[in-house]
Amino acid sequence: MSFSSKYLERLIDELARLPSIGRKTAQRIAFHLLKTSREDAMTLAEAIVAVKEKVGFCAECGNYAEKSPCPLCADDERDASILCVVEQPVDVVAVERTGAFRGRYHVLGGALSPLDGTGPEDLRVKELLARVAGAAGRTPVREVILATNPTVAGESTALYVSRLLAPHGVRVTRIARGVPVGSDLEYSDQMTLARALEGRKDMD
Amino acid sequence: MSFSSKYLERLIDELARLPSIGRKTAQRIAFHLLKTSREDAMTLAEAIVAVKEKVGFCAECGNYAEKSPCPLCADDERDASILCVVEQPVDVVAVERTGAFRGRYHVLGGALSPLDGTGPEDLRVKELLARVAGAAGRTPVREVILATNPTVAGESTALYVSRLLAPHGVRVTRIARGVPVGSDLEYSDQMTLARALEGRKDMD
Repeated sequence: MSFSSKYLERLIDELARLPSIGRKTAQRIAFHLLKTSREDAMTLAEAIVAVKEKVGFCAECGNYAEKSPCPLCADDERDASILCVVEQPVDVVAVERTGAFRGRYHVLGGALSPLDGTGPEDLRVKELLARVAGAAGRTPVREVILATNPTVAGESTALYVSRLLAPHGVRVTRIARGVPVGSDLEYSDQMTLARALEGRKDMD
Repeated sequence: MSFSSKYLERLIDELARLPSIGRKTAQRIAFHLLKTSREDAMTLAEAIVAVKEKVGFCAECGNYAEKSPCPLCADDERDASILCVVEQPVDVVAVERTGAFRGRYHVLGGALSPLDGTGPEDLRVKELLARVAGAAGRTPVREVILATNPTVAGESTALYVSRLLAPHGVRVTRIARGVPVGSDLEYSDQMTLARALEGRKDMD
């Protein structure tokens, strides 16, 4: 046996199950938690419990939220006529961080992936169509931005959703795929560079 | 605001305080915990609580333990006449993993570091001297291996402890410093290489 306590061993096992945490890091964190004040460790444990107990989903956009509608859906300053469709709640964070979007979100909860067994019925597509179809007293949706990942699954999801939206007479756009800002063309993969050429724009 | 829930934000803050966890990783882990089963998240929270509630110190060796003496100190198959002195409990894990040591341990709880304000009184040195001095009915200590880190703090701690042990007529050794196994001389720093030359041994 390497560890002097089975509780320590159990904590390391549990930490090592988290994403981006290898066994070595799990060990370092466990020893840190042993060393740190009881209060700090308890605060972390309570934060984990709180997140599971208090956080649910916003019925409107599908993002994680404490109440429904969530603060983003309830914010009247945000343009309700533009929806940004993303795969996961974490993507909302990424788009929000840009500060370049002031509309509303719609979280699909994943992307079409036959290999992973994710079909259309697993995504919040019906809810998206309902939002676009509109309801009395609601701001009509003018544009749907498809911001799914630039992966095979994300692209097919975007294509699938855009076809379903076509009859609704709403503008459907897709975020640009191209060379990342600050990168070198030399190191760009050919798919990305091909997309960048294809998506070229006139200089202002 | 980037996150739709203050509980989520708090969890990310708490996770980001852990060693080796940046903000990005904290975010990934928090979203993973939101997505995972309630049971898995609770198991992690409980493991953290359990470690703080059940794990204390072994009065003998100073390692983390659920009871005192700890399993390593209570193991009669281990040679009580050889003590391996380390800085931290995590170092016991490292030495144990080698499988090359079958004696007992003594954890100092740190290393001398005037800059960090760690003096001799903060280390379990008195306890070490008491163990070496021995007690009736106890196996006398023949050798003390100083396995503190090969850093400035670790080296001065080793020197300090060795001087205190000198009058006790016990063999005091220091782990070898040299080029790490599997490394290239080309990339060895000069201090390490100098130590490796100094510590050279006759070929068998």
